[in-house]
Amino acid sequence: MSKRAVSKRLLQIPASPIRKLVPFAMAAKKRGIKVYHLNIGDPDIETPEVMLKILKKWSQNPISYSQSQGEPIFLEALKTYYNQLGFSFIETSHLQVTVGGSEAISMALLAVTEARDEIISFEPFYTNYNSYAAVNGIKIVPVLTKPGDGFHLPSVKEIEKKISRKTKAILYCNPNNPTGTVYSRKEIEMLVTIAKKNNLFLIADEVYREFVYDRKKHTSVLSYFENIPNQAILVDSLSKRYSLCGARLGVLSSLNKQIIDGVLRIAQGRLSAGLVDQIMAAKLTDVPHSYFQHVHKEYQNRRNVLYKGLQSIPGVKVPKPEGAFYCIVDLPVKDSEDSCKFLLTDFNLNGETVMFAPAQGFYATAGLGKNQVRIAYVLNTSKLKKCVKILEAGLTAYGKKK
Amino acid sequence: MSKRAVSKRLLQIPASPIRKLVPFAMAAKKRGIKVYHLNIGDPDIETPEVMLKILKKWSQNPISYSQSQGEPIFLEALKTYYNQLGFSFIETSHLQVTVGGSEAISMALLAVTEARDEIISFEPFYTNYNSYAAVNGIKIVPVLTKPGDGFHLPSVKEIEKKISRKTKAILYCNPNNPTGTVYSRKEIEMLVTIAKKNNLFLIADEVYREFVYDRKKHTSVLSYFENIPNQAILVDSLSKRYSLCGARLGVLSSLNKQIIDGVLRIAQGRLSAGLVDQIMAAKLTDVPHSYFQHVHKEYQNRRNVLYKGLQSIPGVKVPKPEGAFYCIVDLPVKDSEDSCKFLLTDFNLNGETVMFAPAQGFYATAGLGKNQVRIAYVLNTSKLKKCVKILEAGLTAYGKKK
Repeated sequence: MSKRAVSKRLLQIPASPIRKLVPFAMAAKKRGIKVYHLNIGDPDIETPEVMLKILKKWSQNPISYSQSQGEPIFLEALKTYYNQLGFSFIETSHLQVTVGGSEAISMALLAVTEARDEIISFEPFYTNYNSYAAVNGIKIVPVLTKPGDGFHLPSVKEIEKKISRKTKAILYCNPNNPTGTVYSRKEIEMLVTIAKKNNLFLIADEVYREFVYDRKKHTSVLSYFENIPNQAILVDSLSKRYSLCGARLGVLSSLNKQIIDGVLRIAQGRLSAGLVDQIMAAKLTDVPHSYFQHVHKEYQNRRNVLYKGLQSIPGVKVPKPEGAFYCIVDLPVKDSEDSCKFLLTDFNLNGETVMFAPAQGFYATAGLGKNQVRIAYVLNTSKLKKCVKILEAGLTAYGKKK
Repeated sequence: MSKRAVSKRLLQIPASPIRKLVPFAMAAKKRGIKVYHLNIGDPDIETPEVMLKILKKWSQNPISYSQSQGEPIFLEALKTYYNQLGFSFIETSHLQVTVGGSEAISMALLAVTEARDEIISFEPFYTNYNSYAAVNGIKIVPVLTKPGDGFHLPSVKEIEKKISRKTKAILYCNPNNPTGTVYSRKEIEMLVTIAKKNNLFLIADEVYREFVYDRKKHTSVLSYFENIPNQAILVDSLSKRYSLCGARLGVLSSLNKQIIDGVLRIAQGRLSAGLVDQIMAAKLTDVPHSYFQHVHKEYQNRRNVLYKGLQSIPGVKVPKPEGAFYCIVDLPVKDSEDSCKFLLTDFNLNGETVMFAPAQGFYATAGLGKNQVRIAYVLNTSKLKKCVKILEAGLTAYGKKK
């Protein structure tokens, strides 16, 4: 009897380039090597104490389902958060709680596309967009952004060139993962204008909203919600803002009632997001302002230390990151995946090494990003300094090996 | 400018028949009416203390991502659980932790079908199968099971009649939600034989495995994993077994490496299941046997009380449920959704009423189930007795109203 074949669509789902080298990292650790993880945006910043207290004084029993739209007190806290950002028009009825920003993006794509439709995104882009596109059977048509421009957006003309009859949406990430670029108000307005003119949905992934440095200002798609009420969709997450990656909580927001009603129906099918996590996260309105000041200062310092360190390594190039906690770095190598693997399998500096994400998986265009890595500066400055040294010595060793 | 249209596939996702009457229940509560919820399988049984203790002594900070396959200690605990059930061949490499049984089913469907493929399931079936089918762009071809047969499976011939060239899998739920039927070893062997002969995947939803009454024995698909290693897929959940509905934890298991590798890639895209929930649930191996004895006894009592009560209402018919905590009940009405709504909007017995799930949404064939409701016996016996009285009085009032 022939082996039953799994689906083609399953086979098309890419392995995560952020996580695929994990087995080599685990093997290195087994050999006693300390591995610094700059491959994944899993911050070391502490979760606010006011949230963790919820766990310690937990009394609800049993751990029952939450509402499909979201636990009411969590929805109220989210509304307050958006209202306090200056978007007083946001009501709980505009919000859908999701299992991480991941589910929000996947739901948004399902809501605005049919199978085999296209969306436009700016490469390099968050690699998991490829997974959500594959799961939803759609194609991401990339528009290239370049290190020479600080990965800022190209012209209207360059973007509109990629719009076809199958294009349903523009999906962008601001502040950007993986480039660290913060789009200007002018750039966001350009996207709104393109969406309006070409009748496209505009999906904004703003999970790094608060991570903007050098007194730059973040321009949210929420500022344009009332301008393009049926087209704008916000995708958000609590993971980075409150160091709640493992709580798996995100948000989808839109003024388009068909979209909000539709994603609620998807949500009903999967029943609810986590109850404990939502009740914990509902304390977001009680997180003191000093928490963010500390986090912001810490990341800006990390950015400064990493940027300075990288610039000192011969052959390494990186535009100054403006936000989030990532950067895309040109290495003096031909195959960054091979060199990242080398750092884990064949190299250590005094028993320590570092793990990066090869950048190729952040591009849709074959062959691009082959000499780049994404670095997540999610460790403290003294560790980052060590990582820079390890990278420098590793590159030298890698050069000699070849 | 024309309103941007959402996708057809979004519009095709059905609203949950379990949850769509919720607004009427909320309105009733606002009027001061007590509503007994027998519409949803959200048990009142307490979560094991050994799990809740994990919350109370939580110290991990920050709440970071878990591994995409699952938190290692949780995977180990799951392996131990399956090994102790008698399936010693199960290794952690055969397991994928999912966000509830919901995600496990949806992943399984994506893994074995292309868009527009078909799967076979036995109606009435768990209504959310319709959501996962819609999200994955496939069609559920129903095979009817009948109250007169206790909703047991029809003959091989009846089932094979529905197999087309597009059929990729049989999806069944045992013990069954919504009918409460427990399939015999012979029935499971029939499904294995059909899967083998017709080269189909066999997806078994066994989230109610432990809920089997009257000393009947549950036959798991795991008993046939080594017989049809590439075709069998187990879908499981901790929600009901440990009263962890709100923890959103499930499992997909298969010996088919392409499937396990593929669902891990889907899982990498959505990063991880909840960290706190997994560490809490990893205590499953420490749950005392007395917990299950208590739970089992409690549900069997509830089943007995409800079954006896329903039989005493004129015009109400129900086969004796054998497992899970649901039954499909024939009411002496033409439109059970209308009567369920009536119980919430226009009726109360001494300030109390009851909420059921209209059964129509559990059928794929239009017109079926219109006089049926699904009852979840998730409340204690004294409340269930009240619910039976409320239903009896409500049916009388509903009959008079028309």
